[in-house]
Amino acid sequence: MAKLVECVPNFSEGRNKEVIEKIVDEVRKVKNVKLLDYLPDEDHNRTVVTMIGNPDSVKEAVINLTKKATELIDMTTHHGGHPRMGATDVIPFTPVSDVTMEECIQLAKEVGEVVGSLGIPVYLYEDAASKPERKNLADVRKGQYEGFFEKIKGEEWVPDFGPQEMNAKSGCTAVGARVALVAFNVNLGTDRLEIADAIAKKIRFIGGGLRFVKGIGLKLEERNIVQVSMNLVNYEKTAVYRAFEMVKMEAQRYGVPVLGSEVIGTVPMKALLDAAEYYLQIENFDINQILEKRLLE
Amino acid sequence: MAKLVECVPNFSEGRNKEVIEKIVDEVRKVKNVKLLDYLPDEDHNRTVVTMIGNPDSVKEAVINLTKKATELIDMTTHHGGHPRMGATDVIPFTPVSDVTMEECIQLAKEVGEVVGSLGIPVYLYEDAASKPERKNLADVRKGQYEGFFEKIKGEEWVPDFGPQEMNAKSGCTAVGARVALVAFNVNLGTDRLEIADAIAKKIRFIGGGLRFVKGIGLKLEERNIVQVSMNLVNYEKTAVYRAFEMVKMEAQRYGVPVLGSEVIGTVPMKALLDAAEYYLQIENFDINQILEKRLLE
Repeated sequence: MAKLVECVPNFSEGRNKEVIEKIVDEVRKVKNVKLLDYLPDEDHNRTVVTMIGNPDSVKEAVINLTKKATELIDMTTHHGGHPRMGATDVIPFTPVSDVTMEECIQLAKEVGEVVGSLGIPVYLYEDAASKPERKNLADVRKGQYEGFFEKIKGEEWVPDFGPQEMNAKSGCTAVGARVALVAFNVNLGTDRLEIADAIAKKIRFIGGGLRFVKGIGLKLEERNIVQVSMNLVNYEKTAVYRAFEMVKMEAQRYGVPVLGSEVIGTVPMKALLDAAEYYLQIENFDINQILEKRLLE
Repeated sequence: MAKLVECVPNFSEGRNKEVIEKIVDEVRKVKNVKLLDYLPDEDHNRTVVTMIGNPDSVKEAVINLTKKATELIDMTTHHGGHPRMGATDVIPFTPVSDVTMEECIQLAKEVGEVVGSLGIPVYLYEDAASKPERKNLADVRKGQYEGFFEKIKGEEWVPDFGPQEMNAKSGCTAVGARVALVAFNVNLGTDRLEIADAIAKKIRFIGGGLRFVKGIGLKLEERNIVQVSMNLVNYEKTAVYRAFEMVKMEAQRYGVPVLGSEVIGTVPMKALLDAAEYYLQIENFDINQILEKRLLE
């Protein structure tokens, strides 16, 4: 199978269509890169771009996208609902096929160096992090754009690349490498948010639950039910079905039924095939038995 | 997504490597056709070829393969364990993506006509059948090569293409169109074959079971257990998980545990994703959420 890497840069413009198109065009222009999606969000004033392709081409595309975002976005006037610290806010790389995490970390460093050379402070995060306290994106981004003018002066926040001085126009950028994230929610047959909250706390890592699960309770106002909303940050090690069964098990304690689940956005085939393999008790299953896998070879 | 059709011709040579390679080479030579597999079986003296590609290219490849098999295989000296009636025994077409069953039926007819013009009697079967009694391949092939010298004289067995006279060297050929078949076996924790048999009889169509399930009981001598061996001939209508759950349910009646299952050979992604969707109770799932599906677009 061909070497394939996914990159999901988020940039801080979700309202001005003309600017958004100009930035996304930089991806369209590069051969051997497939633009899977780009989702401008007006409330967040932010656009999430999903691209996939061979590592060199993806690198070229995301560098060009970053240069264009640096040119066209002015953070001094940016407002929006989503935490952010820069024009090109985050650039995560994810291995898809025939690419190791080490190669994605290398890619993150190479791209980080180029972005740094544009005069933008760069922080490596997740698997590419240079220190444990930079692994978690939320920790890196804490204080956001506005807070970074002060934060960057601290010894512990010397950037991995670029100047140790805030870039007022472009902010700073986090560049990382991580396994594909699966956004997976389980809907419960109750309107009691405290139950979803209690379950989320039990199943997530920080509460003593599964190693690669982050989760919170949410209310779905329209349906008058609650939801355990999860991010599975390593579906190969903490399988989707395991998180599902654990929510179900905890829900039983409250006599609350599981109404259904939701998979949000794009997921790798394997994340769901693992569930089929588990529930159908398939012996000696090989992913190469999947027709579509063979077609991608 | 590109138009893709699968074709799985079976030809009656599984021992002579040189002959097998020459026949399979005809597929390799055609552009836009991917040779997924070819499995020579010495006991059966038969080779199953799996190819996939755009309809016109697959048509060209399978016609060339048939011509080469007609040239190199002599049925007058053929012996083997598997039922067969011709040098190129069966040619089934299966829609994979962006192709309708009607297009596959049309392909079967076009290929059937060409094979008929080589002086080989051709019977259309499954969804391409011209009469209900020719739908089932086992009915068409009954009597096999040896019996066809007589069988072909009957009014009800006038070929759909080619002469109404047996071709001694090449036999006759069945050309058909069908949905992808999933070979799925469930292993039971007992050595009592009569239990696997009884379950197979209850879950298969002819026994009053599921519409698109064929099944028999088998003994797995090495493991000293038995197995319900199934062909799911339309996994979109009779899902894999439904057959699995029904075997499980029937096994309970005998106090027999389900040890595991086996998926044999290549399966379309959807056949297993349906199981994930069912067991995880995923709401509003769209197959386009699967990364690999997007990559094939």
